[in-house]
Amino acid sequence: MTEGFDVRMRGFRDRSTVEGALEAALDGISPLLSEPVDVMDAAGRVLADDVVSGVDVPAFRRSMMDGYAVRAEDTYGATAYNPIPLDIVGVSMPGTDPDDHVAQGQCVTIVTGAPMPDGADAVLMVENTSGSGDRIEATAPVPVGRNVGRVGEDVAVGALILNSGRTLLPQDVGLLSAVGHHPIDVVRRPTVRIIVSGDELLPPGASPVGTKIVDSNSPMLAALVQRDGGFPEVVRLPDEEGAMEEALARAGADVIVTAGAASVGSEDRVPILVDKLGSLSIHGITMRPSAPTGIGTVNGVRVVILPGNPVSCLAAYDFFAGPVVRSLGGRSPDWPYLSVRRTLARRIVSQIGRTDYARVVIDEGLVNPVAISGSSVLSSVTKASGFVVIPSALEGYAEDTEVTVHCYHGDCDS
Amino acid sequence: MTEGFDVRMRGFRDRSTVEGALEAALDGISPLLSEPVDVMDAAGRVLADDVVSGVDVPAFRRSMMDGYAVRAEDTYGATAYNPIPLDIVGVSMPGTDPDDHVAQGQCVTIVTGAPMPDGADAVLMVENTSGSGDRIEATAPVPVGRNVGRVGEDVAVGALILNSGRTLLPQDVGLLSAVGHHPIDVVRRPTVRIIVSGDELLPPGASPVGTKIVDSNSPMLAALVQRDGGFPEVVRLPDEEGAMEEALARAGADVIVTAGAASVGSEDRVPILVDKLGSLSIHGITMRPSAPTGIGTVNGVRVVILPGNPVSCLAAYDFFAGPVVRSLGGRSPDWPYLSVRRTLARRIVSQIGRTDYARVVIDEGLVNPVAISGSSVLSSVTKASGFVVIPSALEGYAEDTEVTVHCYHGDCDS
Repeated sequence: MTEGFDVRMRGFRDRSTVEGALEAALDGISPLLSEPVDVMDAAGRVLADDVVSGVDVPAFRRSMMDGYAVRAEDTYGATAYNPIPLDIVGVSMPGTDPDDHVAQGQCVTIVTGAPMPDGADAVLMVENTSGSGDRIEATAPVPVGRNVGRVGEDVAVGALILNSGRTLLPQDVGLLSAVGHHPIDVVRRPTVRIIVSGDELLPPGASPVGTKIVDSNSPMLAALVQRDGGFPEVVRLPDEEGAMEEALARAGADVIVTAGAASVGSEDRVPILVDKLGSLSIHGITMRPSAPTGIGTVNGVRVVILPGNPVSCLAAYDFFAGPVVRSLGGRSPDWPYLSVRRTLARRIVSQIGRTDYARVVIDEGLVNPVAISGSSVLSSVTKASGFVVIPSALEGYAEDTEVTVHCYHGDCDS
Repeated sequence: MTEGFDVRMRGFRDRSTVEGALEAALDGISPLLSEPVDVMDAAGRVLADDVVSGVDVPAFRRSMMDGYAVRAEDTYGATAYNPIPLDIVGVSMPGTDPDDHVAQGQCVTIVTGAPMPDGADAVLMVENTSGSGDRIEATAPVPVGRNVGRVGEDVAVGALILNSGRTLLPQDVGLLSAVGHHPIDVVRRPTVRIIVSGDELLPPGASPVGTKIVDSNSPMLAALVQRDGGFPEVVRLPDEEGAMEEALARAGADVIVTAGAASVGSEDRVPILVDKLGSLSIHGITMRPSAPTGIGTVNGVRVVILPGNPVSCLAAYDFFAGPVVRSLGGRSPDWPYLSVRRTLARRIVSQIGRTDYARVVIDEGLVNPVAISGSSVLSSVTKASGFVVIPSALEGYAEDTEVTVHCYHGDCDS
């Protein structure tokens, strides 16, 4: 028997609503400062500043096809029956500076993307010519400007090409490369310290033995943090106050999430330590699962205290920690889940005054609550298609109600 | 003037339909073999095999709350007016092997997650007790099994927990960790060699100078490959046949995509080389942009020949190369774009017999074609919300038609 051990609980302070807790989690959070990255590493990052092009793209008149650069007026009246001869005086290839000048009755062989020679103002398609060698014959007219890409056609110098806050798409990094914008200032990715504690925990990769269990929260949280654009830094600790205190107070994290020892039992040290080292603004939330969630600040770093039961941990991360991670990274605090509207096959029961996170399976288009709903049953969220949130103002949803399902997979049909 | 240069084109073979080209691209493609990864690196990877749990989770009866492990029958009849005394004979903490035995009239202090001691069959909540020290009094009865998690409650030994082909979610890696499944066999990520050629190209990070342009295709393609779960291996070459031949024939790639020199002009060497080194099954596709796309095989490696114009390159990647990359990686060949149904503000014109890829902007809920549609204008795809595909059987879509928009961003409202 452990001397002096007392299982009696301290009790929560006034429980917060989900909305109040999210507000506290995001209070004072703004995007981190920028860092420069190479264009090859910029996709998926969040642009820190508006980007204005310093150049015209293209910077020169270019041919849009393979053919002959001509003076358009030289071709007027040309037909198959009235071919007009043109002398080939040169070739223009991409990337070369054309030193030829096209005078009356002359042309330059040109390929797609090559610069237009001086004097020429149109490109005659090969199909509208005959002959070869040093001379061709135009068999159709071409108007001024035809098949010529103008300077700045894609991007004009001074144009705003991408806005700050944009998550860079593949084509965006292509365009940034084309305009020579380098390096690219993006919002720094937040370092998220994930602190998992418990004498009963074996590290991921171990096999469960006896009453030791393998930590499932740190791989799950690390994956969630990566999904949200953060760098996970995993710290696993025994149930020991000094180690936890050090991990909470040590510099280097932009945000801290803890899993376990979150409630009000005798062993639940994390909220007490956060309160001691900094401030604990929220402890206890009117939701199920995840009621024993806390929100505080230590040394200016937001700390989100997540419950250790893995389903509670997942839900509390998504409700409160994910928005902080994404906001620090310049991303939307909104859920990264696609949502769909579907009809309930069976009712979902909740309680007024409590927000519920109900795991559901979509089967033949209908929404079925997952039968086993214990917050310790991680397989309930691997079997689920997604979840339904029952707001605190409702007692639940009746059968046949259309509800919003937030999909764990890309869409709820996976 | 370049001696002997002839701009005349060879002409395409019979052009393929988009459907025929996709079939050729995917012909014989199946997921790569598996590789073992650490559970901390497994999120987002594709599971190579079904996973059956080798253990029960939990492996022991555990308490679901903080309280007292009791023999339920000892509490029957307990009320606040008829409290039943129980002697505390020990404490059970998570991760310890309880050596206590609960006999009649006894109990063990227990916290959430801790193993149940022998003899006990229920956990009495703290709220339903009074007293402390060595003895409590039960003030309410508790039924057998209440607040006790049974062996295998989350996962039973022998249960199929995740299916092969699944892209692992954060909660999936949590569950794999919990059952001690290690390492995790996932489909190997395909190495995608991206070959970009052109004497006019400066590398990404350079500034455009004179008639030299900065390569936009390699950063764009590398980002697309990463999006699709592949490893990009970028090779940049001058317009030189030997270098291209070596890059096409060299071992180490699971799939090759080339950008540029793809058409039928005198400088378009890639299709000729692929035909020479292996086989060229498709060259020329009835679509706009991206008509000069080719599909072949060299040394058993699928080669997708993409046009050099960046919009054509993007569209041809998405139509033909992306499905190959994703299929090799065990993922769905389907587009990774969310699609929405919206109404056209203006008509889109196409041609029967040709598939069109029309960039569109969604503005106030209505779909507007992007005005500048040249395949060299990369900014048309950075300004666009997404694209609409006009099937070859249609001449286009009339104003007010509801069309499917494939969204470049997570959804088309970004």
